[in-house]
Amino acid sequence: MCRWLGYSGSPVLLSRALYTPAHSLIDQSLHSTLGAEPTNGDGFGIGWYDEQPEPGVFHSIEPAWNDQNLRELAGHITSGLFFAHIRAAIGSAVQQTNCHPFRHGRWLFMHNGYVAELATVKRDLILAVDESLYPEIKGQADTEILFYLALTFGLEDDPPDAVARTIGLVEEVGHRKGVQYPFQGTIAISDGGRIWAFRYSSEGKSRSLFLTKDVPTLRNLYPEREILHEVSADARLVVSEPMGDLPGAWNEVPESSYGVVGHGDDQLRPFEVKPPAAAIAV
Amino acid sequence: MCRWLGYSGSPVLLSRALYTPAHSLIDQSLHSTLGAEPTNGDGFGIGWYDEQPEPGVFHSIEPAWNDQNLRELAGHITSGLFFAHIRAAIGSAVQQTNCHPFRHGRWLFMHNGYVAELATVKRDLILAVDESLYPEIKGQADTEILFYLALTFGLEDDPPDAVARTIGLVEEVGHRKGVQYPFQGTIAISDGGRIWAFRYSSEGKSRSLFLTKDVPTLRNLYPEREILHEVSADARLVVSEPMGDLPGAWNEVPESSYGVVGHGDDQLRPFEVKPPAAAIAV
Amino acid sequence: MCRWLGYSGSPVLLSRALYTPAHSLIDQSLHSTLGAEPTNGDGFGIGWYDEQPEPGVFHSIEPAWNDQNLRELAGHITSGLFFAHIRAAIGSAVQQTNCHPFRHGRWLFMHNGYVAELATVKRDLILAVDESLYPEIKGQADTEILFYLALTFGLEDDPPDAVARTIGLVEEVGHRKGVQYPFQGTIAISDGGRIWAFRYSSEGKSRSLFLTKDVPTLRNLYPEREILHEVSADARLVVSEPMGDLPGAWNEVPESSYGVVGHGDDQLRPFEVKPPAAAIAV
Amino acid sequence: MCRWLGYSGSPVLLSRALYTPAHSLIDQSLHSTLGAEPTNGDGFGIGWYDEQPEPGVFHSIEPAWNDQNLRELAGHITSGLFFAHIRAAIGSAVQQTNCHPFRHGRWLFMHNGYVAELATVKRDLILAVDESLYPEIKGQADTEILFYLALTFGLEDDPPDAVARTIGLVEEVGHRKGVQYPFQGTIAISDGGRIWAFRYSSEGKSRSLFLTKDVPTLRNLYPEREILHEVSADARLVVSEPMGDLPGAWNEVPESSYGVVGHGDDQLRPFEVKPPAAAIAV
Repeated sequence: MCRWLGYSGSPVLLSRALYTPAHSLIDQSLHSTLGAEPTNGDGFGIGWYDEQPEPGVFHSIEPAWNDQNLRELAGHITSGLFFAHIRAAIGSAVQQTNCHPFRHGRWLFMHNGYVAELATVKRDLILAVDESLYPEIKGQADTEILFYLALTFGLEDDPPDAVARTIGLVEEVGHRKGVQYPFQGTIAISDGGRIWAFRYSSEGKSRSLFLTKDVPTLRNLYPEREILHEVSADARLVVSEPMGDLPGAWNEVPESSYGVVGHGDDQLRPFEVKPPAAAIAV
Repeated sequence: MCRWLGYSGSPVLLSRALYTPAHSLIDQSLHSTLGAEPTNGDGFGIGWYDEQPEPGVFHSIEPAWNDQNLRELAGHITSGLFFAHIRAAIGSAVQQTNCHPFRHGRWLFMHNGYVAELATVKRDLILAVDESLYPEIKGQADTEILFYLALTFGLEDDPPDAVARTIGLVEEVGHRKGVQYPFQGTIAISDGGRIWAFRYSSEGKSRSLFLTKDVPTLRNLYPEREILHEVSADARLVVSEPMGDLPGAWNEVPESSYGVVGHGDDQLRPFEVKPPAAAIAV
Repeated sequence: MCRWLGYSGSPVLLSRALYTPAHSLIDQSLHSTLGAEPTNGDGFGIGWYDEQPEPGVFHSIEPAWNDQNLRELAGHITSGLFFAHIRAAIGSAVQQTNCHPFRHGRWLFMHNGYVAELATVKRDLILAVDESLYPEIKGQADTEILFYLALTFGLEDDPPDAVARTIGLVEEVGHRKGVQYPFQGTIAISDGGRIWAFRYSSEGKSRSLFLTKDVPTLRNLYPEREILHEVSADARLVVSEPMGDLPGAWNEVPESSYGVVGHGDDQLRPFEVKPPAAAIAV
Repeated sequence: MCRWLGYSGSPVLLSRALYTPAHSLIDQSLHSTLGAEPTNGDGFGIGWYDEQPEPGVFHSIEPAWNDQNLRELAGHITSGLFFAHIRAAIGSAVQQTNCHPFRHGRWLFMHNGYVAELATVKRDLILAVDESLYPEIKGQADTEILFYLALTFGLEDDPPDAVARTIGLVEEVGHRKGVQYPFQGTIAISDGGRIWAFRYSSEGKSRSLFLTKDVPTLRNLYPEREILHEVSADARLVVSEPMGDLPGAWNEVPESSYGVVGHGDDQLRPFEVKPPAAAIAV
């Protein structure tokens, strides 16, 4: 129900990724073609890494397409790893504390999709969040709960394992409460060095997820494109919906898999959910 | 570029007109089918008459589809004559002072369309506003200027004449500055007793405008519809885009004409622009 | 940390209570003299009863002193029982879902004060909320938790008992977690018929709370004041800080007591907290 | 009616100037001691120069004291010349287009004070703005008009002359319309290289204005203060109200004078208004 973008590579102005391309993310806020809804106007957020200890985040409840502050910031903030997210709310309020990306220390987390029948499963999920992390939850969005569950399950040590256990819990609780397909979506996570991007749904019909091909390949395909010579050879975009006007620039991430980009060490791997070993005691 | 609705009849909850119908105005804020854009998410406003000396207005910069306050107010405010407007901004900022309907004393004014090349003609138009009215202009929207021009030209005495002279001035200034089609749109005006609704464009291809047929006719067509028995026989909706699921309920207002509803004395008349008698001295 | 007002009596325009009096609630949003802070600029809310099944609520994150919509609504909404609240946030975000009054069915609830060290006790309090009510919690404010605890403890049957048990639980959990004075504040509750107003703090130094004297007494004191003849003989204001310029118009509600107004059956009673019979099993 | 700050020197995080000092600007948004009002809660803005062709600006209608985005940005944006402004509105709406600093090309402009009886003089002032600049005016604040008048009068070539002529016009129009003291305030202007700061009022009782002493002097006074060794020897703060806890750190700018800082070429000069040579023909 949302659209998002992650960039890793040599530092660029955020506007180069957010506004410049054809069918850019900001354009998708009004006219998404692959999203569940064409309009993603229920707030947005950006998160970016720089030389500070923690990434910066900027959240707004305005539609991205007419937010003058976002335009200004994107034209002045340069980063080598950043996230951007435009929201189409389903149920939860349009307020900054529900805007992605969410942050904890060095970590950013964003999501396109949903926890099905959240009202039914929310209490059990919240109870599984580590007590020391619980007071940090500020909003009411399903994604924030997913983030704090993943942190509870060791996100900072092993992101794929923590996400697998998080979705495993969501499915276990959901199925116990009679929810047919408890999880849907794509998730992006970063620690400032790499981006992990997951594609999974309980139904096996997941929201879309795309990665740019490697820059040397793209330079061969489009030698006249300046942007491809400005960015480093290891630059990558991960997106919920392709943008730009370069056919052949994108690889779709397959169902039930995840990609890792950054540090020149890109990977694409199968993703398997890990159900809780034992029932969660409530 | 916007969508709007005006109601005149026996008092009803605003929500009956704004939320209840199929393809309601609030639904049109996300999914307009006849508008220039499907999305009208750049703020909204309502204006309603009650027993107070002046109508109330409520303006918001949130998209109407997720504004909780609008939902509350529409479920608690009852009125026998009200306006509602959802905005798709073109150029001017998303701020409450640019939201329709605009108010002056007993009068409300709203608009769907634009003054073409506003930056080119704005100064000349502003100069034509009566000096005593000038300080009341609070925003930067073309519609507010149209309203204060119409007040300058005698809106409170003869609305059709004042609108004809207003658009006449817009066309004269526009043509002088090289604008091919200076005015486009539909305008709704009320003094709390009647609604005047205008359809006109310099190009002769105006934004759409519709009036409900009279209630007795509709009751014959749809005898089982409760709402048609709740409202008075003289109730009318004027809209920029039909809503509801009653085929045959709407009459399109023809090009270059205006309708008047209220006081049981409905009219449909041709509309002719009145150019300024002499050039405006600047 | 906030200021609030409750009115019960013959229907009046909200502006008569919110804007007209000297040192009005809106004035207190900038210049409170008895509050913990002079400024209460972190959003506000109103709630009012009319002929609809549920009271209306309007929440805003703007400071009340410059909110044009509040001014409009207060000038057009008439009610015989309404609440208004201006917020000075401590810790939780300035967002509509944290604004008072909170609503559940026919019930409104607002508060001036705090649950001490909320982060420490929040999880245990949330766990005590009835599972069926839990999904309704939308914000992160301590007051909303108090409200849902009170609903869990039978607010709709016996408000003083439910509030006594709610604060009893807050104190029990707080003391168990090493919080010296777990609760502070005044609380106002209504079902549309009566207003219950509580004054209590664990420390025994509670936020202020005042009730107007009965109208016949005030008419004797100030026979020339029109407003006293406009409102009914049983009209009452309950406030966290006196307003107006009528010395002798207010009775302070004593420490550890509560008042009930409405239905011509006003009461002032001692308030005693009820600790949980047994420890809450977590 | 507002408070502001300008910094010029070696690049620092904005938070070092906005949040860190005792009685910081953000603290002054709630508790100004020298301002006309203690509260400056009607929005705020920052403007900063970096390697981009134009300075960045960020405007918000939230009170600065609780704006999470401002806190984030100030913790991530580094600049060697920046402005910050907190607003206490008098009359004009709280909207982003009324927030300082205003920008035109490389220039930033902000103001604490007012044009007296703006409604009376506004039309004549607007008419004096160059026709080519007129369409750029987006808000309704007196300060924005002052800025565009100054640009009309050659701000980009000679700031002190342009400001002298701007205030000269304001006084001429005001006096002609019967306004006793047409102008009040302090103004800060920058082109990214230097800051010009003006203190003037028609009454001769101007809003306060202060400049930090030179850094070497401050280092002698407070050798243990780290910040004084972090910033360059030519660093300066210009403020409407002193902050920090370093007695002796500030020089008050005298009545009817202006200071220039930057490029190691600081000046303090008398300021004289320049009345229009001839009456403005309207």
